[in-house]
Amino acid sequence: MKNIDKDFLLQLDAKIVEFLVKDRQFIFEKMGKHLEVDEKQNRRDLVTEVDRGNQAHIIEALSQLLPDAKILAEESENDLTDAKGLMWVIDPIDGTMNFVKQREDFAVMIALYEDGKPLLGYIYDVMRDVLLHGGPGIGVVYKNQDVINPPANLALEESLIGLSGPMLVNNAYHFQDVEKRTLGARVIGSAGIEFIRVLLGKQIGYVSSLKPWDFAAGNALAAVFGLKVGYVDGEAINVLKSGVVLVATKKAYSAIMSIVK
Amino acid sequence: MKNIDKDFLLQLDAKIVEFLVKDRQFIFEKMGKHLEVDEKQNRRDLVTEVDRGNQAHIIEALSQLLPDAKILAEESENDLTDAKGLMWVIDPIDGTMNFVKQREDFAVMIALYEDGKPLLGYIYDVMRDVLLHGGPGIGVVYKNQDVINPPANLALEESLIGLSGPMLVNNAYHFQDVEKRTLGARVIGSAGIEFIRVLLGKQIGYVSSLKPWDFAAGNALAAVFGLKVGYVDGEAINVLKSGVVLVATKKAYSAIMSIVK
Repeated sequence: MKNIDKDFLLQLDAKIVEFLVKDRQFIFEKMGKHLEVDEKQNRRDLVTEVDRGNQAHIIEALSQLLPDAKILAEESENDLTDAKGLMWVIDPIDGTMNFVKQREDFAVMIALYEDGKPLLGYIYDVMRDVLLHGGPGIGVVYKNQDVINPPANLALEESLIGLSGPMLVNNAYHFQDVEKRTLGARVIGSAGIEFIRVLLGKQIGYVSSLKPWDFAAGNALAAVFGLKVGYVDGEAINVLKSGVVLVATKKAYSAIMSIVK
Repeated sequence: MKNIDKDFLLQLDAKIVEFLVKDRQFIFEKMGKHLEVDEKQNRRDLVTEVDRGNQAHIIEALSQLLPDAKILAEESENDLTDAKGLMWVIDPIDGTMNFVKQREDFAVMIALYEDGKPLLGYIYDVMRDVLLHGGPGIGVVYKNQDVINPPANLALEESLIGLSGPMLVNNAYHFQDVEKRTLGARVIGSAGIEFIRVLLGKQIGYVSSLKPWDFAAGNALAAVFGLKVGYVDGEAINVLKSGVVLVATKKAYSAIMSIVK
């Protein structure tokens, strides 16, 4: 096993960024053509040949960088029972519905965890060419090449909030009451794009029912910024566990948790 | 009064596009600095110095092009009682909340109407640099320099729909039932950006409580494409009248109207 220190992770980060810039072109070439689209669990849960092709593309690249790390990826059978050691978490196309219907507001996400703790996270807004990367392993968050500062610790009342459409419609966990306290709800349809908005201070939080690959990268980046991430039932994040995940500024997180409990 | 024929309108269109490209730089220069923000009707209804400054900038330019036309603009006292003759309808920054909080997903909108009928419409997604322009007066819609085709006449079940957050939360006009038939809701917070998505075939429709400057440009462009636009109570569009406005593909429009009535 390699020595996973900060210098090693900085070098790894540079290689992953280099890969993702090329991966963007890979996606562009595929998305110009007719897409083969299949339904997964239901008609709102889609997968395309680009999800599958890009996942294989990403796994090939990451496996060369850290051959011994486990892999947890959206478009694979996932039967990992523990998070010990190094683990890649991969969402080749987050927001597949947007990818298929809108050709925007989708993201590529990669995270590296060690013993269940985040080291590195990557969220790439492919169409806007905004790549947030970094994590606790290197102690910073970059927007493309630039180190960025944490967002202001705004209160619930001071900005917008991102929500999943079904949670808003169904008033799940009283999130309609939460929404009324904010300056308004936005429903974008991609966890990656929503995490970017929170990390850049464009909204005070985001909540949705998420799988590990939906939140792993955002959780890594949020940790650097002191943003709070957890399940709305109060449990701490477990990178193998799906659930309703909330990310928010410290002030908004407390306020939201006192409403939803 | 000038002869408002197609040749004249094509020349006018070229001049307005030329102006809007410069206007984008005008906005960029202003938005980099600290914004002076005021509340209008309530804390979710904002106006900034850029809304006011850009409105003055637009009115100055348009008044030179057609000195006799009336003006209906968001950030002015509006007491027009009839739509006779030529009239500009202007929204200097549509989606001011997004402009203030997110610095994206806002639009500049301009429309030219004659005797209440649309001639030209302009929706400029400033951050993505996507300008949709055209209208019944010239019989085409351009995306920047390119003539574009109408979107496919998709059914409600075949794509996403754009909604206002409050309408979704409050199940206004049974729009939660509408949402369940679609592939999902998106809440973007700018009528201009939502109209662009409908015009480009990225969603089957959009509904929100709108003022004339929110729908005038989109209505002009939708008319070229055979998209349906109307108030959800069944009335035809009146460019002086605010209301809950629906734009959708023909198929989706019929399906939605049978649910909301």
